[in-house]
Amino acid sequence: MAYQPLTPETLLDYLKGRPALAGILPPDETYDVQEVGDGNLNLVFVVQSRENPVHTLVVKQALPYLRVVGEDWPLTRDRVIYETEALKLHNKYAPGLAPQVYDHDYEMSTLMMENLNRHEIMRKPLVRRVKFPNFAEDIATFLANTLFHTSDLYLKGEEKKALVERFMNPHLRKLQEDFVYTNPFKESPENNWNPLLDDLVQEVRRDGELKERVAWLKEGYMNHAQSLIHADLHTGSIMINQEETRVIDPEFAFVGPAGYDVAAVLQNLMLSYASHYAHTPDPEERADYQAWLMETMKQIWERFAQKFENLWVAHPEGDLMPADYWDYPGGEADFARFRKDYLAGIFRDMVGIAGTKALRRMMGIVSVWDISSIEDPEKRAVAERFAIQVGRRWIKEMDEIANIDRFLDVMREEAERVHA
Amino acid sequence: MAYQPLTPETLLDYLKGRPALAGILPPDETYDVQEVGDGNLNLVFVVQSRENPVHTLVVKQALPYLRVVGEDWPLTRDRVIYETEALKLHNKYAPGLAPQVYDHDYEMSTLMMENLNRHEIMRKPLVRRVKFPNFAEDIATFLANTLFHTSDLYLKGEEKKALVERFMNPHLRKLQEDFVYTNPFKESPENNWNPLLDDLVQEVRRDGELKERVAWLKEGYMNHAQSLIHADLHTGSIMINQEETRVIDPEFAFVGPAGYDVAAVLQNLMLSYASHYAHTPDPEERADYQAWLMETMKQIWERFAQKFENLWVAHPEGDLMPADYWDYPGGEADFARFRKDYLAGIFRDMVGIAGTKALRRMMGIVSVWDISSIEDPEKRAVAERFAIQVGRRWIKEMDEIANIDRFLDVMREEAERVHA
Repeated sequence: MAYQPLTPETLLDYLKGRPALAGILPPDETYDVQEVGDGNLNLVFVVQSRENPVHTLVVKQALPYLRVVGEDWPLTRDRVIYETEALKLHNKYAPGLAPQVYDHDYEMSTLMMENLNRHEIMRKPLVRRVKFPNFAEDIATFLANTLFHTSDLYLKGEEKKALVERFMNPHLRKLQEDFVYTNPFKESPENNWNPLLDDLVQEVRRDGELKERVAWLKEGYMNHAQSLIHADLHTGSIMINQEETRVIDPEFAFVGPAGYDVAAVLQNLMLSYASHYAHTPDPEERADYQAWLMETMKQIWERFAQKFENLWVAHPEGDLMPADYWDYPGGEADFARFRKDYLAGIFRDMVGIAGTKALRRMMGIVSVWDISSIEDPEKRAVAERFAIQVGRRWIKEMDEIANIDRFLDVMREEAERVHA
Repeated sequence: MAYQPLTPETLLDYLKGRPALAGILPPDETYDVQEVGDGNLNLVFVVQSRENPVHTLVVKQALPYLRVVGEDWPLTRDRVIYETEALKLHNKYAPGLAPQVYDHDYEMSTLMMENLNRHEIMRKPLVRRVKFPNFAEDIATFLANTLFHTSDLYLKGEEKKALVERFMNPHLRKLQEDFVYTNPFKESPENNWNPLLDDLVQEVRRDGELKERVAWLKEGYMNHAQSLIHADLHTGSIMINQEETRVIDPEFAFVGPAGYDVAAVLQNLMLSYASHYAHTPDPEERADYQAWLMETMKQIWERFAQKFENLWVAHPEGDLMPADYWDYPGGEADFARFRKDYLAGIFRDMVGIAGTKALRRMMGIVSVWDISSIEDPEKRAVAERFAIQVGRRWIKEMDEIANIDRFLDVMREEAERVHA
């Protein structure tokens, strides 16, 4: 079927023609269709049976233009291919932690997948101080499983190159290269920041040591093809409830630095921490929730690192290095040291990337709802100043911050300054 | 024309059908054809006019099998595509330093190019102690021009990704990953080494610090997509005379660590240096030529670094970083520091890679003719021991060896031990 945007009217006929969906949407039931997309790049439809509400799915269709401004900004529809291919790998390596893919159609740029109607986007409950008891464990599992199995520690050399080629994703990578690593740190018309923090923002943009670090981090983002990363794993890409966690929207996926996804999760929790200086005036309530956030950050790193290493020990199948490379007296200890150092490398990248991503949210084209929803600019400035100071130190001190406790100490130390 | 191996009998008719060659091989002359390939992967023919010997070219055709063992080892013929595409970029960015490409035909896996009949392969005259006055300058120019123009310092993000995709080259990369970075450092049946050095070789294969370094260097080779590299730039891939230098055979080309090609050249000169402990018994003659080799190594690095930086300053057109990223008070000095640190990063990689490549020649599947041509095993062991000790230190001391003088000091120090 030649590409055309679907509508609530044409959707059901289109889905009836897809054999893979016969089991999900039995033909003898009546279906409601609702368009729920609030993005500007894609159409999103929810389809649900009136007779049997578990017969339901979500259809995502890429638009060939940027929707908010009509058809004037043409876009490639490749992103739905990248999203589908990434979700299939997530389904394979982290089953139950990403929406299940039922079907896809590259000609129509559609993706048919699990309807996550018992979950909500994580960002908003974080503002309401909801605690999620399984989140650290789930996201650590997702990160370890997806990052390990797409690395040279698990794959053969040629499998890895095929993965790199399949996820070349040049257009969306270019967006992140510009809007995460470049424009927030220089004069650029789309940048937004709180005028109350203008001095601080200008100081960051002229901080030579920080600028060089960011240039190096960008080099790693552009060129270090370590693992298949989600590359947009903020708390708006996580759907959650008290039992379950699902990572969605991996259309930015490509083979890049493994620390990037871990950094995205941790720095979003740091921004949530910052936001409670405004959202939660009661000091006890605030301290309690901030402590939960920090403990969650610690658990995520520690469990991720442990799971990643366990996978490596259990499946040393990749070409970096074949197991018999370490087969000599003392080789076991040398291999253990290499694993430790490999994870230290991911950690070091993570620290710098977390800082960069925090700063870009405070100084670039788009903030996060946790913070932008703080209406009073004075109160927002308290949260933003904290986030900028933490982010700046994570970048500049990335060589000194050797473990997760030191990483969190930076937040503790800057928190002291907020209270002072 | 469907693929078929050419023969001296079919070649001229084939070439007559290629319009791009009409100017190179005018149709009214008589041509001699000579098959000169001594490799086992390709057919190589020289075509030359009897009436006018400047009407000449070389035809290279990839075979779909490994020739020495008949048709039993099938191979992809992609390598001629990679070679052609790389040569076209070398022609563009380093004109006069690689054979000129006249025509190519991917269906027939052929490449028609300049006949370098006034040049010889560099390895052999190095044994004869021939000095090449223009070599350091030429090879530094080749390295700087090819490595700079294919990096993110010159290219836009999307151009760079297209380059990475065009040179995916998974099969030949896998060969190098195995035979440079892996097998020489473990037990592997194809490894060769001098039995007189067995203790030393086994010591290297159990040196945990060295093994971890090599694993990291392999990680960089596999994943650091910095610049388009030749990836096989030994002195057997250089054709030379007293005036001119040409780099040939880039079929291993892919986007990898920029330091790799520089390392290949410098460590081949080190191996030549080592070989003269056997080839040149006269101490004065030996000292004189070894001094020329070392001075050449120093000049190559220094001129490469200067040329690379000059290109960057003159053409800061790439996405890492756009020029206005450094546009603030003090930004010029920060940009200068980033350039210096970027070159220091290439240098550090170069040191470790040079060591790895030297060791693999002494302990892996294939040595270099400079050394393998030393018939007396005792004499050969002197050269090989020197090369192993230097290579090992380059790897283990790569963090301490901060400049080209320290790099060469390792050779000087090990040379003292040879004399002792």
